[in-house]
Amino acid sequence: MRATVGILGAGPAGLLLARLLHNAGIDSVVLESRDRAYVERRQRAGILEQGTADVLRAAGAGERMDREGLRHDGIELRFDRRRHRVDFPALTGGRSVTVYAQTEVCKDLIALQLQDGGPLLFEAEALAVEGADTDAPRVRFRREGREDVLECAYVVGCDGFWGVARKAIPAELVQVFERTYPFGWLGILADVPPSHDELVYARHDRGFALLSMRSPSVSRLYLQVPDGTDAGEWSDEEIWDELGRRFETADDWRLERGPITQKSVTPMRSYVHEPMRHGRLFLAGDAAHIVPPTGAKGLNLAVGDVVTFARALTHQQETGSPDLLDAYSETCLRRIWQAERFSYDMTTLLHRAPGATGFEDRLQLARLERIASSRAAETDLAEGYTGFPFGG
Amino acid sequence: MRATVGILGAGPAGLLLARLLHNAGIDSVVLESRDRAYVERRQRAGILEQGTADVLRAAGAGERMDREGLRHDGIELRFDRRRHRVDFPALTGGRSVTVYAQTEVCKDLIALQLQDGGPLLFEAEALAVEGADTDAPRVRFRREGREDVLECAYVVGCDGFWGVARKAIPAELVQVFERTYPFGWLGILADVPPSHDELVYARHDRGFALLSMRSPSVSRLYLQVPDGTDAGEWSDEEIWDELGRRFETADDWRLERGPITQKSVTPMRSYVHEPMRHGRLFLAGDAAHIVPPTGAKGLNLAVGDVVTFARALTHQQETGSPDLLDAYSETCLRRIWQAERFSYDMTTLLHRAPGATGFEDRLQLARLERIASSRAAETDLAEGYTGFPFGG
Repeated sequence: MRATVGILGAGPAGLLLARLLHNAGIDSVVLESRDRAYVERRQRAGILEQGTADVLRAAGAGERMDREGLRHDGIELRFDRRRHRVDFPALTGGRSVTVYAQTEVCKDLIALQLQDGGPLLFEAEALAVEGADTDAPRVRFRREGREDVLECAYVVGCDGFWGVARKAIPAELVQVFERTYPFGWLGILADVPPSHDELVYARHDRGFALLSMRSPSVSRLYLQVPDGTDAGEWSDEEIWDELGRRFETADDWRLERGPITQKSVTPMRSYVHEPMRHGRLFLAGDAAHIVPPTGAKGLNLAVGDVVTFARALTHQQETGSPDLLDAYSETCLRRIWQAERFSYDMTTLLHRAPGATGFEDRLQLARLERIASSRAAETDLAEGYTGFPFGG
Repeated sequence: MRATVGILGAGPAGLLLARLLHNAGIDSVVLESRDRAYVERRQRAGILEQGTADVLRAAGAGERMDREGLRHDGIELRFDRRRHRVDFPALTGGRSVTVYAQTEVCKDLIALQLQDGGPLLFEAEALAVEGADTDAPRVRFRREGREDVLECAYVVGCDGFWGVARKAIPAELVQVFERTYPFGWLGILADVPPSHDELVYARHDRGFALLSMRSPSVSRLYLQVPDGTDAGEWSDEEIWDELGRRFETADDWRLERGPITQKSVTPMRSYVHEPMRHGRLFLAGDAAHIVPPTGAKGLNLAVGDVVTFARALTHQQETGSPDLLDAYSETCLRRIWQAERFSYDMTTLLHRAPGATGFEDRLQLARLERIASSRAAETDLAEGYTGFPFGG
């Protein structure tokens, strides 16, 4: 098999890249180890930055998002029984975010790709990237029990944190930056209309909680729990009771309960792999970097990476200049480090670390107070939340 | 002895308070354990926020400050061999800071107080505050070998971190918030014109450095050193060499050297004592709170406290209402926690902690990058640096 661009992974990054390349007249093949149903059901992110929504629209993949997605013009910060709304458009010159689940983004992109795109092979497991530093890199993969080879001009690893692409970069060229957190998120999906029409980020002495939603009838809620917690340790009633306590307000707001349809624990990690390029192999999304979910940057970072790659390759094909491809890693990393910083700051602003001192608690409250009282501090947050500009 | 207000300590807080009360027609007595020469020579802060300079001026103590002080409209951040100037007036609607040493503020206020103020007793050592929760608090003190008593309507402890005033608040009512840092500042005074006309805050892999000044011919410079460092361990040449390394730039800027006339190490601490009031005893300045010196908030916080007290007492005398006096602690603490947060953030932004990880280094650089590229983030810094509003 041959393709100009071999893409590993049919998550949102790989699928969007295939679409961007198709639109630019560049052929690609996507290899995905899982089957289609798995990819379309994998619960992940749900907040699209302004720039991400714009890119999907421009790529021709925004129709259902515009119909079914929920435009959100702000978030609520809750602390000390107080409620403070951050108004995104007022602070950022009109920017907002869209609530539209990653599962739906993937469904839309898969449908487009199968309709008029290049090959999208499910249950095709990439085994290794070879010859990354040559002009003819190859992806060895297994499909229907048989090994095969995809010969490419470029390989893009969109195969996630556990993927094989990253391993093709020699260890001696790599620097890894990492931080783990002593807590995770217990997340639930519940069949109940969300109790607030925008996301609510709550800082509480008992720990962080987040109220989010998948649709007008489905709530998505999270509780900070100790690292290593098993979701089964929490009964549905305990979850609702704890959410109620952490979202407490001084007014008569209340949390509506409903049947919990899914329950799982997400660990928290910050991770950056430098560089993101080796020869003709490029890493994008979780294959190169992880953020904790606070602030919802993961999917949006992946989109920034593939937009940067597609622009760089188009530039190369149109002008013959490899400048943008050569600058890929540096261009992406500028934005990635801003998102890493933002995600770290949102996490430490809102979570209570085990053994936190009174001084640290007071600092958190002073930070929240500052955001609630300074337009500059609030704008800094709103700019970060609605998204840092794509590089390049 | 009797006075409406007994003031412990003739640092800038106690001296300014005596002046503010004098101007409002309220009598006071100031007790200071050291002699005048000591107070006038004690090297401490040197940066007056806009609001502090305004208060000194309005109190009639700004004449020499306006003549000899240096108005600074910005600072320089130096990182990764880059230089970024933060323009205060442009970001804050015209605010700036004034470089004028604490020693000079004290000299001006002492001269005024001796000329037309109430008693200012040097070498009068406060021993204890008694009856703070009665209508007639008393200060026991020793002077010229004899014990005496100052009977007051109110006592204000401006007697610093090691003073006796704080001890009069019963332990069971007190909460202390504290953080120490694993480094200190080695500070020098040198007879050489400052190598830059504004303060330079440098973040370097080898540690923090600060270029400051006392006058157009005297430089004040600081180096981050490990906690517990003895100033004698550093020769003058080693100090200049290390400063040169940490201030490195990509352009041809250079650090001018000159004779070092003073050398000392300052430890770094964050500390807040709550509440700041017990009955008729009020704490102000270092008696109640300490900040690390990064960001120069200590003196300015003390000024905010005594302004708040003077306003509250004037209000009480004019209207009979104790509301503002009752709210003293809460009013001051709002501003103090913002300054604690700011000082902590400036410290962690610029210092390299022993054992810092690569992730933490990159976060620092991403934060500095953010300040240099986002007007909102830069404004947040400029607002904090030029000063949070006085409460009340």
